[in-house]
Amino acid sequence: MIAAADLATYLVADAASIHGRSVAELAAAAVEGGATVVQVRGKDLSAAELLEAVADCARRIAGRATLLVNDRVDVYLAARADGLPVDGVHVGQSDLPAERVRRLVGPDAVVGLSASRASELAALRRLPAGTVDYLGVGAIRATPTKKDHPDPLGWDGFAAFVALAAEFPCVAIGGVGPGDAAAARAAGAAGLAVVRAVCASPDPRAAAAALRREWEDAAPVAPAEGRVRS
Amino acid sequence: MIAAADLATYLVADAASIHGRSVAELAAAAVEGGATVVQVRGKDLSAAELLEAVADCARRIAGRATLLVNDRVDVYLAARADGLPVDGVHVGQSDLPAERVRRLVGPDAVVGLSASRASELAALRRLPAGTVDYLGVGAIRATPTKKDHPDPLGWDGFAAFVALAAEFPCVAIGGVGPGDAAAARAAGAAGLAVVRAVCASPDPRAAAAALRREWEDAAPVAPAEGRVRS
Repeated sequence: MIAAADLATYLVADAASIHGRSVAELAAAAVEGGATVVQVRGKDLSAAELLEAVADCARRIAGRATLLVNDRVDVYLAARADGLPVDGVHVGQSDLPAERVRRLVGPDAVVGLSASRASELAALRRLPAGTVDYLGVGAIRATPTKKDHPDPLGWDGFAAFVALAAEFPCVAIGGVGPGDAAAARAAGAAGLAVVRAVCASPDPRAAAAALRREWEDAAPVAPAEGRVRS
Repeated sequence: MIAAADLATYLVADAASIHGRSVAELAAAAVEGGATVVQVRGKDLSAAELLEAVADCARRIAGRATLLVNDRVDVYLAARADGLPVDGVHVGQSDLPAERVRRLVGPDAVVGLSASRASELAALRRLPAGTVDYLGVGAIRATPTKKDHPDPLGWDGFAAFVALAAEFPCVAIGGVGPGDAAAARAAGAAGLAVVRAVCASPDPRAAAAALRREWEDAAPVAPAEGRVRS
């Protein structure tokens, strides 16, 4: 489980987007700055390399932020079995199905799922309550980080999805960064998930701190306003 | 655990090497022909696709051969949790470390490991007995299937490795196929693992049957002869 408040400033620490430093260095700097979630993604890493990156992150972050592993449930389980402070996994629609993931990680781990279509939400609603803790919803805008994403939602499309997905905290992802917090909160987002805005920054600590400050400063939207079905 | 005898005719059902049929069709045909092990490999498949291929294989093979999953321990665990007849995993040196894999899959699952260097064997010997059930040793010859393999061992190199690795059944892999059984058994192999010899065959059932027959016909080497330390 994860409290919605903890999703506010969500870093996808994507190994392919980080140059000149390690994933763990980047993640630690972002958490120093105020990132509340770090998801370690390494689609091009071997499982051994990903486990090492996750273990390094866990040691550096030491529970000060929620630490998630992208896709590789086995890497999460291996890190957890090593006694490391790692909190869960984030999976996409082509990764292991969410109900299988929940069964493997148990009830206490965080499970996040990427979703942006009504059909995906309908499939999710056929699963037991508690299968998924939050949704990553996007892309808001086109982004070079993920070339296979569907058409961008924009904030209107995001708000419409959030209204449908009322029982799930929704994190906005895809081409978002500085300057987006107010629009994200107005659209009902539980958080803003960034890749390049932190991974490509020369000062990831400051970049994360600015995102967190902007998020705190933006007026939260009352649930009745942000979550009304359209 | 796996009996050494069961390793004789080992198919790596590599999704990237199969054209015009499904992994499960190919695997089922090979097992009809006499394959004793099927390892499902899908480095380019998503976890959802790999799980579907493994589940299809499990249903088609139905316990008539040992069914292993390459690399993705989570996919194996998910298939097992679904009650499917799947037996274990095969990992390489850059996948999850063998001791982590054993901890995740438990004592009864089969765990295979790729190894071809004395240093890898030394590392393996520092782990508890029973961590790994067998070794996949190669490449015997250069092969287009795996472009990142080290220099080919040849049968002499294989025999030297087998002599060092006396406590592990060793399956010969990499560029091997019809005509190799006698040399493989003379070098101390517990089995012959093939990709293209079955995956690229127009008749995978017949290809597997020929390999199995050739294996049975080749004279086994007495342990004292094949396993003496050099």
